Amino acid sequence: MLQYSNALDTMFQALADPGRRLMLERLCRGPASVSELGEPLKMSLSAVVQHLHVLEQSGLVKSEKVGRVRTCHVEAGALRAAEKWINERRTLWERRLDRLGAFLAETPDHEKPKE
Amino acid sequence: MLQYSNALDTMFQALADPGRRLMLERLCRGPASVSELGEPLKMSLSAVVQHLHVLEQSGLVKSEKVGRVRTCHVEAGALRAAEKWINERRTLWERRLDRLGAFLAETPDHEKPKE
Repeated sequence: MLQYSNALDTMFQALADPGRRLMLERLCRGPASVSELGEPLKMSLSAVVQHLHVLEQSGLVKSEKVGRVRTCHVEAGALRAAEKWINERRTLWERRLDRLGAFLAETPDHEKPKE
Repeated sequence: MLQYSNALDTMFQALADPGRRLMLERLCRGPASVSELGEPLKMSLSAVVQHLHVLEQSGLVKSEKVGRVRTCHVEAGALRAAEKWINERRTLWERRLDRLGAFLAETPDHEKPKE
């Protein structure tokens, strides 16, 4: 449970930076080298490497060095875990609102709880 | 675009803390007062208020003071925005993998790109 919680901490933390989200967006269109990742961001290579490190720590991205080139790709499973967490909470809340709406629709005005 | 980006920054930042996620989970089951929110977290009231401030800044939670009691509730629209962002990227990546799978299935072995 704690491990799962830590995974969500680092994942949401990784997503909280606009530069890292841009790197992730780029990788969702296909694997890229570190320099390809940095190009549209107008960032120093060392800044790109730092952001990449955060993305890898979070499990959202993996990279592999072949020869002198490090290639990065998205780990869709990790993205799915973050999405699932949000989706479950949102659904819970929206169901609650639906039940409340149904209750109010079925209850005569004089029996409704006061605001 | 920048405003949208800032909204995502603060939203994912708010979700990156396990205490704030627990507060959000509690609120997804229904509105709660600040002290009700803090109770299961074993946190000082001032820590709860700080976390609540981050959640409100992110747009995920709203609160309203009536008399002496501040009641908090979830803003499902904000949760939906965070979920949508992740879902769109994940779908993009998974479609890419599907197309790659289809391409490899249709391509005779001797024409496949080398690893």
